[in-house]
Amino acid sequence: MRARRTERAFARQLDAQDELASFREAFVIADPDLIYLDGNSLGRLPRRTVERLRVAVEEEWGRDLIRGWNADWFAAPARVGEKIARLVGAAPGQVIVSDSTSINLFKLAMAALALRPGRSRIVSDALNFPSDLYVLQSCAHLLGGRHRLTLVPSADGIAVDERDLWAAIDEDTALVELSHVTFKSGFLYDAEAVTRRAHQAGALVLWDLCHSVGAVPIELDRWGVDLAVGCTYKYLNGGPGAPAFLYVRRDLQEQAVSPIWGWFGQRSPFAFELDYQPAEGIVRFMVSSPPILSLLAMEAALDPLLEAGIERIRHKSLRLTEYAVELVDERLVPLGFVLGSPRDPGRRGSHVSIRHPDGYRINRALIEEMGVLPDFREPDNIRLGLAPLYTSFEELWEAVERIRRVVEEGRHLRYPAERLPVT
Amino acid sequence: MRARRTERAFARQLDAQDELASFREAFVIADPDLIYLDGNSLGRLPRRTVERLRVAVEEEWGRDLIRGWNADWFAAPARVGEKIARLVGAAPGQVIVSDSTSINLFKLAMAALALRPGRSRIVSDALNFPSDLYVLQSCAHLLGGRHRLTLVPSADGIAVDERDLWAAIDEDTALVELSHVTFKSGFLYDAEAVTRRAHQAGALVLWDLCHSVGAVPIELDRWGVDLAVGCTYKYLNGGPGAPAFLYVRRDLQEQAVSPIWGWFGQRSPFAFELDYQPAEGIVRFMVSSPPILSLLAMEAALDPLLEAGIERIRHKSLRLTEYAVELVDERLVPLGFVLGSPRDPGRRGSHVSIRHPDGYRINRALIEEMGVLPDFREPDNIRLGLAPLYTSFEELWEAVERIRRVVEEGRHLRYPAERLPVT
Repeated sequence: MRARRTERAFARQLDAQDELASFREAFVIADPDLIYLDGNSLGRLPRRTVERLRVAVEEEWGRDLIRGWNADWFAAPARVGEKIARLVGAAPGQVIVSDSTSINLFKLAMAALALRPGRSRIVSDALNFPSDLYVLQSCAHLLGGRHRLTLVPSADGIAVDERDLWAAIDEDTALVELSHVTFKSGFLYDAEAVTRRAHQAGALVLWDLCHSVGAVPIELDRWGVDLAVGCTYKYLNGGPGAPAFLYVRRDLQEQAVSPIWGWFGQRSPFAFELDYQPAEGIVRFMVSSPPILSLLAMEAALDPLLEAGIERIRHKSLRLTEYAVELVDERLVPLGFVLGSPRDPGRRGSHVSIRHPDGYRINRALIEEMGVLPDFREPDNIRLGLAPLYTSFEELWEAVERIRRVVEEGRHLRYPAERLPVT
Repeated sequence: MRARRTERAFARQLDAQDELASFREAFVIADPDLIYLDGNSLGRLPRRTVERLRVAVEEEWGRDLIRGWNADWFAAPARVGEKIARLVGAAPGQVIVSDSTSINLFKLAMAALALRPGRSRIVSDALNFPSDLYVLQSCAHLLGGRHRLTLVPSADGIAVDERDLWAAIDEDTALVELSHVTFKSGFLYDAEAVTRRAHQAGALVLWDLCHSVGAVPIELDRWGVDLAVGCTYKYLNGGPGAPAFLYVRRDLQEQAVSPIWGWFGQRSPFAFELDYQPAEGIVRFMVSSPPILSLLAMEAALDPLLEAGIERIRHKSLRLTEYAVELVDERLVPLGFVLGSPRDPGRRGSHVSIRHPDGYRINRALIEEMGVLPDFREPDNIRLGLAPLYTSFEELWEAVERIRRVVEEGRHLRYPAERLPVT
């Protein structure tokens, strides 16, 4: 007997057909009744990370002490960079782990602006993650106000019409900086087309991959991308605040100058010379010692992703977001929700936003009494993050069911609309 | 019967009188025969760090997931900053954990230069850690070559004659940036006097506390210091690459502008506004998510230091370095060593450098066959790092004995003088 698509039994059938289902066992699931839909913000703890950290702490630090640097740690930023390179379509020697996303964005944006000295426009969009915009604003401030930041608007708060973007990119544009997948609506850019268009105008492109890496196929080399940055704590499951990565296309590496010179980016750090000479290649974009424990925790987390392969991950992600949209349309739209993400699956990352005037209170009720952990983004977005390695179709079905119950039973009305302070 | 000062029994007497001796038990000592003299580079693993990380990983990340941010992690940079503030003589609201030392140095040096727009000189010294100089060089490069970096020389490679420093600080000096304790010789500046002198000339002062914090009393507020940075993986035992801290004197915080604007330094990060508005106070010098696992490991490590108290730590540190100098003079100078650190204990940090033409090979023999872990700094320095919380007087005695044996038995001659690559 065939289940209707909106019944739990159908979700179970989807799970039974899911060839990535067994990857859930690679993660610590402390409370099987808790539905975790915030892997787009902080990925779950991979089991192997627990053991890797034990070894890093007790053996490498506790027992080997300073020898850990030579044995393993010095090589880690480049080694882990090459693992990430396989997820972003980069040939060796172009990705390295370093600092945070915003620091890397600062380094690469400053380098890009210096490579286009006669141009004064920086193009981004109004859907971009604010920290990206703040970094770009600080670059413009630092360079004496010679640059203008143009934010391409979004008519619906969900997507950017690429014709508006084309119009903004002109002969005065030095840099186009965008989030590959936008943080609130999950809008996915056609990065190849944007890169081509920017290059036609003579501009450089810097992609923020935070919300796409590990969820969406990325082909930086093939697309001709100049520069990219990304974090590792979302779909890469690297752990809270895990170090970020950066990509500089090989033929730009010798021309591009990092604005921050440190000894990990120096040609011979242990010669302790008084004058900075940049290292060869991508290493020059490092600054100093990375946080090793956080870095090694993150390295261990990459293995399940590499085993699953990004094509299978994307396949499941599309099934998950399609099913989410279907359930939202059928079961939540009648309760006052509207979809806050693109309907075209080819234009979606791996999270689906749903909007409701009482979104904040509904989100609180979900967290505090329903055992569902999405997250909320002002003014009215509840983000449902669907991580293909551990989110099941039945969990998604059950989450929508619990959202329905909150609203139908008016549970959210018991919570104030005033925002709790983030402390 | 009284032991001669150069006999092992005397070292044991010093241990018996050491009121910090029991703190050694707060650390993991995996191999009791290994003499670890590199706590000035990477401090030992505190026992409580092991348990704190287990909780952070398995409970806070694995079980609580994204809720960890609200429960504990968001508050951690400021909370841990206040613990460090107690070690550097700073009233609340002036120290925060953020990024790496070099990134913090960049942020504060750029802020300082902007506060002294008419001045073009940056003063440092030739003993400074090269990464500090590289950062200052990048600031000068970024500001269009308007600034000159003046490095006060050292006649003996050990100390800077402060009269030379006074001569370098003039009415055109914007910033004086120095390591409070120099990395190679362990020379300790009179930071109060330097700060006063810089202020007389109208310059700002930025101290790098990497080699002094946790080993030497620091009174940033009392000394009138403007800006400071420091790492946490040396005497603070925070773990490899643990995040750094920065200090901005309260009355400078509203004027000083960080060159890198990120959402953790924004007034309301979760309002996701498109325009950057700096947060109140020291928080504005943050950029984005800190590496939480590395940060919490480091937080746990601060407790033994705070319990011991910096005065008792300095007292033992002075006894250790005095005893080291005495043993070197008596037992190693006859073998061709010379002291590479100041003789005046008031001008020494907590490590003692010894120099020998075969220093590199001697250091290798110590590591590879003698169970002693110092470190080597070009061209001929072996650094003996003496960490008051876990280095015993008998260990120090035994280390000198093993160094003596290496040279007397010619063990180092079996190693090539060519440097091993750091990979």
